[in-house]
Amino acid sequence: MAEVNAFEAATALMDWDHQTYMPQAAGEARAAHVSILSRLLHELLVSDETQRLAQEAAKEATSEDEKALVRVVSRRLEKSTKIPASLVEEKSRVSSEAHEIWVRARADNDFAKFRPSLERIVELNRQEAEHLGYTDHIYDALTDLYEEGATKKGWDAMFDGIRQPMVDLVARIKEAPAIDNRFLFGDWDVDAQRRFTEMLVEAIGFDMKRGRQDTAPHPFCTNFSVNDVRLTTRYQEFLGSAIFGSLHEAGHGVYEQGSPQEWDRTPLSGGVSLGVHESQSRTWENIVGRSKAFWSRYLPELKRSFPALPGLSLDDFYRAVNRVEPSFIRVEADEVTYNLHIMVRFEIECGMLEGSLAVKDLPEVWNEKYRQYLGITPPTDSLGCLQDVHWSGGMIGYFPTYSMGNILSYQIWEKLQADLGDTDRLMADGEFAPILGWLQDKVYRHGSKYPPSELIQRVCGGPLDPKPYLSGITRKYEGVYGLASTV
Amino acid sequence: MAEVNAFEAATALMDWDHQTYMPQAAGEARAAHVSILSRLLHELLVSDETQRLAQEAAKEATSEDEKALVRVVSRRLEKSTKIPASLVEEKSRVSSEAHEIWVRARADNDFAKFRPSLERIVELNRQEAEHLGYTDHIYDALTDLYEEGATKKGWDAMFDGIRQPMVDLVARIKEAPAIDNRFLFGDWDVDAQRRFTEMLVEAIGFDMKRGRQDTAPHPFCTNFSVNDVRLTTRYQEFLGSAIFGSLHEAGHGVYEQGSPQEWDRTPLSGGVSLGVHESQSRTWENIVGRSKAFWSRYLPELKRSFPALPGLSLDDFYRAVNRVEPSFIRVEADEVTYNLHIMVRFEIECGMLEGSLAVKDLPEVWNEKYRQYLGITPPTDSLGCLQDVHWSGGMIGYFPTYSMGNILSYQIWEKLQADLGDTDRLMADGEFAPILGWLQDKVYRHGSKYPPSELIQRVCGGPLDPKPYLSGITRKYEGVYGLASTV
Repeated sequence: MAEVNAFEAATALMDWDHQTYMPQAAGEARAAHVSILSRLLHELLVSDETQRLAQEAAKEATSEDEKALVRVVSRRLEKSTKIPASLVEEKSRVSSEAHEIWVRARADNDFAKFRPSLERIVELNRQEAEHLGYTDHIYDALTDLYEEGATKKGWDAMFDGIRQPMVDLVARIKEAPAIDNRFLFGDWDVDAQRRFTEMLVEAIGFDMKRGRQDTAPHPFCTNFSVNDVRLTTRYQEFLGSAIFGSLHEAGHGVYEQGSPQEWDRTPLSGGVSLGVHESQSRTWENIVGRSKAFWSRYLPELKRSFPALPGLSLDDFYRAVNRVEPSFIRVEADEVTYNLHIMVRFEIECGMLEGSLAVKDLPEVWNEKYRQYLGITPPTDSLGCLQDVHWSGGMIGYFPTYSMGNILSYQIWEKLQADLGDTDRLMADGEFAPILGWLQDKVYRHGSKYPPSELIQRVCGGPLDPKPYLSGITRKYEGVYGLASTV
Repeated sequence: MAEVNAFEAATALMDWDHQTYMPQAAGEARAAHVSILSRLLHELLVSDETQRLAQEAAKEATSEDEKALVRVVSRRLEKSTKIPASLVEEKSRVSSEAHEIWVRARADNDFAKFRPSLERIVELNRQEAEHLGYTDHIYDALTDLYEEGATKKGWDAMFDGIRQPMVDLVARIKEAPAIDNRFLFGDWDVDAQRRFTEMLVEAIGFDMKRGRQDTAPHPFCTNFSVNDVRLTTRYQEFLGSAIFGSLHEAGHGVYEQGSPQEWDRTPLSGGVSLGVHESQSRTWENIVGRSKAFWSRYLPELKRSFPALPGLSLDDFYRAVNRVEPSFIRVEADEVTYNLHIMVRFEIECGMLEGSLAVKDLPEVWNEKYRQYLGITPPTDSLGCLQDVHWSGGMIGYFPTYSMGNILSYQIWEKLQADLGDTDRLMADGEFAPILGWLQDKVYRHGSKYPPSELIQRVCGGPLDPKPYLSGITRKYEGVYGLASTV
């Protein structure tokens, strides 16, 4: 598994470099290198020797950690061996081509151009699901790749729990006077943004000796070891892009940095699933980073860093960074409408996989669902069903983990607050150590040891539950928009 | 070989990242990753399958390029298989430890601390040489790893050709009034240095779409494909550090970028040997970059970029950047004394390998040779025999390629001038395309196709010859120091 980890570190570094520093003409060679190393990694995973070693290890494992390691490795080897190498290769090739086609189709607002690729990707995902196997629904086989144990039924229940309340809340907010956030748009000094965001991510506890922050067109977090965690952010006209982008990625980052040193370079190190990971990025971005308490501490420093900001009050700023507005683009969506974007994608993915929704009808169904959930109609497919990178990259079953992250972040925070008491005071004092320490103890230090459902049970005392999220978000935004209290 | 290349690209990127952006605590994991991938690469090279494929290819090769490819690959496989994996591993382990010990020994000026490591490294290099085999001298087996076809006898002849004339020239320069270059030291704006050096390397023809420049404590050039060549430089108190460091690495860079696109990711791509590579870095750093013609073009821009520079004449500047002064540290040495530093190391390496020089006597012998060649005595071993990284990294046989580069740069330039005529006018006009084009045609486009001796024969019409270097350097520095002309 140390060899597996070395291959993964190599391709992860190649990907980081691709998105941060790689010269423009280097893409073809980089793709070839990643493709070769990925193939060699797959060969290593499915080799008889690896299988034999895993079986030996299973017999020898005695401690709880050893057994967890065997479980994680077995799951991975099982997934790898179930899918034939030819399918892995075809999916990789088709996705790589589809990505280029999607980039052009989105630029040209031409869904027809992308349609054949998407049809092929849906078909290849169907084949993959059949190889992986499932009991209830074909979606289960795929979504389990991103969130162990997740099923369509589980996601349905999750979305059923929040759909109507969120649609209703958005509708109530639409009735209220809009919030002005224009003062956050400007020609902000890049160095000042870098310094300010680095200050923030270090303040919440991201260790710059074991990580760094660079810029990327689409921010992400990656890591090559527990002591080498890379954040990225972007400096744009909207000052919030850098600030909340950095806090979001730093949330992923502190989770990665929190794995035990002795697990480094093993499969037990690092966040356990996409949903749990997203819960931590959203915790630090939204629950901490968009709180009034947080900005009571940092607004003065923000004003010093960006003298062009007008003389605004804490309340002005707090409301501006929590402005809700139904919009077309998911990645720019606010905390309230975000899950509605995800629901659209989840329902469409299920339909495409089942065959109840033909790819050719995607634009029409997409737009109808945006009308229904968000009350707006995308004027173009580029602002509609062509906006996301995931499907062109071959990934189906991924989207619901974003909503799980949003929901879980509030559920975990409720427990954290019960233990720590006045978290607002801590944030207002810039005292993040107790918060980080609690999350470290309850979540981060467990790395990938427990399956996500077991981890949630241990942390929250029960399964994923949308209630804390619903009450938390409703209470917050009734405050932001001065709506009558319902919770 | 595409798989070999993918492993090499991965470890090269890991090394680049290590020296440019890697967080401070990430070293241990990075070393583990590189070590594992290097072992997997070695296993791939010596595998029966690779040997079989190489033999098949040898039978099938018909074109000149195919035959060259087979030759290059065979040489590599032969070297890899001759050295037992256990020795590769031990040398790698010992070198890695020795490097850390050396860093501390140099910091503490404590040769005794490093001595056992160096003794072990000399012994392992001896073993390696015996496995590789040689006819005349044990040094031949090792130096051939860095410069194909090189031998101790050949290096002896090269140094014999320049030793006395260079010692004499340095002595004559010591008699002349010293040149004042203090105006080149200051607190120079880093951004201005970055912009100015990037302008220069692009001006000489380095393609930034297929490469980039970053900073590193010890500048180097690496590449992951013909379209991804990475330069590094450093911004220091001495303004010349960045300027000539950048031009030096860009010289390596344009050589790498000059390989044919169709050879990318094959063993034919890239510079053929360390000596030929160094000839190109030295050409652009010294012959072009330290010429009066070059600065007649760029001094005005330099003054604009660094307003703190005093109102100096072209001649002031030209003399300052060509100041000669016997000094202790090789990497800071000027063009005239540089080879004297190399001779010291070469003679000591031969002695240590032969056994005629005991490692324990190294400091004494080192200092004696500095007295003899440079007329100065290092006050400490840190400024003496502990200064270079090479031996601690396990590399013996490498140093003479630096001198070969210096000598060859003048030899090739003589041919270039014969073909292009007034190169001073071209440089003064910032017209580097004809110069780069000539080098591209004669040297760069051949990548690693011809053995270095054959390439030199093709370009220069004869073997390596110190005469153009001796006359060129003597003429130049008699001018710089106003000495009586002897050439």
